[in-house]
Amino acid sequence: MKLKELGEFGLIDLVYDLINKSRNPEHSSWQQLLVGIGDDAAAWQGSNYIQLATTDTLVQDVHFRLSTTTWEELGWKALAVNLSDIAAMGGIPQYALISLSLPDELEVADISRFTNGLVPLAEKFGVAVVGGNLTTAPIIVITITVTGYCQGETLKRSVARPGDYIAVTGYLGTSAAGMEMLRGKINLDAESTRTLRQAHLQPMPRIEEGRILAQHEVKAAIDISDGLIADLDHVCEASKVNARIRWEQVPVHPVVRANFPDYQQLALCGGEDYELLFAANKNVIDSVTQAVDCRVTIIGEMTEEILPGRVTVVDNKGDAIPYERKGWQHFGNEASQAKLA
Amino acid sequence: MKLKELGEFGLIDLVYDLINKSRNPEHSSWQQLLVGIGDDAAAWQGSNYIQLATTDTLVQDVHFRLSTTTWEELGWKALAVNLSDIAAMGGIPQYALISLSLPDELEVADISRFTNGLVPLAEKFGVAVVGGNLTTAPIIVITITVTGYCQGETLKRSVARPGDYIAVTGYLGTSAAGMEMLRGKINLDAESTRTLRQAHLQPMPRIEEGRILAQHEVKAAIDISDGLIADLDHVCEASKVNARIRWEQVPVHPVVRANFPDYQQLALCGGEDYELLFAANKNVIDSVTQAVDCRVTIIGEMTEEILPGRVTVVDNKGDAIPYERKGWQHFGNEASQAKLA
Repeated sequence: MKLKELGEFGLIDLVYDLINKSRNPEHSSWQQLLVGIGDDAAAWQGSNYIQLATTDTLVQDVHFRLSTTTWEELGWKALAVNLSDIAAMGGIPQYALISLSLPDELEVADISRFTNGLVPLAEKFGVAVVGGNLTTAPIIVITITVTGYCQGETLKRSVARPGDYIAVTGYLGTSAAGMEMLRGKINLDAESTRTLRQAHLQPMPRIEEGRILAQHEVKAAIDISDGLIADLDHVCEASKVNARIRWEQVPVHPVVRANFPDYQQLALCGGEDYELLFAANKNVIDSVTQAVDCRVTIIGEMTEEILPGRVTVVDNKGDAIPYERKGWQHFGNEASQAKLA
Repeated sequence: MKLKELGEFGLIDLVYDLINKSRNPEHSSWQQLLVGIGDDAAAWQGSNYIQLATTDTLVQDVHFRLSTTTWEELGWKALAVNLSDIAAMGGIPQYALISLSLPDELEVADISRFTNGLVPLAEKFGVAVVGGNLTTAPIIVITITVTGYCQGETLKRSVARPGDYIAVTGYLGTSAAGMEMLRGKINLDAESTRTLRQAHLQPMPRIEEGRILAQHEVKAAIDISDGLIADLDHVCEASKVNARIRWEQVPVHPVVRANFPDYQQLALCGGEDYELLFAANKNVIDSVTQAVDCRVTIIGEMTEEILPGRVTVVDNKGDAIPYERKGWQHFGNEASQAKLA
């Protein structure tokens, strides 16, 4: 069987099973492990704090195109996607390691642009870049690893319960709309263009919001990287619950709503918004909403598990709305070009 | 200017300078940092122990060829090169994150083979694989990040002093000889073939030896990944010393000496042996030699700095032996094919 037949999530399950065989409770690393493969970041018990580590890769012509992305934007985004994983654990990022695989023919100035894009984001969140790797390759591949810690408990995917409300920060579908715009599908005014471009290429990781979630005793969270439904599906599978989304409550940016006829699809399945999705009771969500600077919207609720991972989207009459696909998936995904920008 | 004109080490210096601008002593990450870019691993002060993190990338047809490397060997080596960096800090590895960029057309069974090669090495050293990333790409790119800690001080590149003896574990040039053999340059008997293939594709990281070095108050160490002269050069630059190697003392495996006319070149410049090179006084080296299971050989001494990074190799009359190149370097290296196997 080929990878494209198995798909990304099948492959993750396979690797998880293979690695899990090596779990050995005699080793302190396994003893201290709190969260392994299958969440936004790994977490283990340190001396004082829970320690976190996460890694993410951007591949040329899979995750980005140089024709539509500046090197500065690439530097920002490569770090941002990792910081978003730390945010989804309720953590504080600390150190970054940057591995760049680069063609010989690349301009040195492009690497300066890359770091010029990355450094302001690192500075903003107090992240020190402390190492990495530089290697020749026929295409650009960027892997960044970020470590961090939690002052209290970590947020996890696996602890949502039936009856929890589901809430999200910010707007959904803006990044996917930005990608469609960059692929030349639509021309917008300067202000709208800036909004969508930034949503797609310079997302702001929700570090502060993640900390506030953890402080307010939210337990279950994920960042929206694959798409609302796909990421909610991950939470449902990990927590053994189902979910019902009320479509009319899903927050869509006015620019997206006004200019993209397929905005429902973008908001449900678009991915790469790097907003936080979390589940908690109404009181907790209300107190979080008071505490954070960004918008927080309740979009549905968790239900008892009937089918593993089932996410239902309903209209204002309670009727199910069909959705076409469940979001980005690597390896043989027919939508594989949709990720490009 | 293109990357191939600047070269790997020039690019490392550039990135270091760009990143270092973001150093901000107000952030705890920078306050706690002990060793940043430019050593085998990053090191920072944790609550009880010094924490370590390192990352390394293997690119298809740059670092390995599927025609001469099994997937099991690839899994082993991808982790081993990272563990070797932890060893060179005198550290104990704990957690690994594995980022795989893979073509759609790859067989799922190959990924099982990869983990089957990696898991025994992880188990041997108590490393828990706790996360990673899977993504589509036109070529195979493997990036592994390993975290760890030191029970005492870290070994560093920057603290060698004039008058220190230079010692190495094991043999040098065996991995490079293995690569030449795999490229079809030579046919050897089964036992010799096994020895050289293993040296190149399944190197054993010197974790235990690194710990013993640190316990015996060795301060300066590096692992030999780029080649003896290139890595010694890194130590010399970081420590602001020069080095003199006595060629007849450099340990070369009998199989290499007997079968490779260019064994001097292989031992001085070959790279990828993943042995430890360290500098200390004679008493310290003697006590290390007693404590470790492997061979330890004194091969020269550190001298006052005359030219930055200068490494001299002398014969038994004290005359300088010329060497052709200083080891592996990415980006526009004329020897760039030499790394392939």
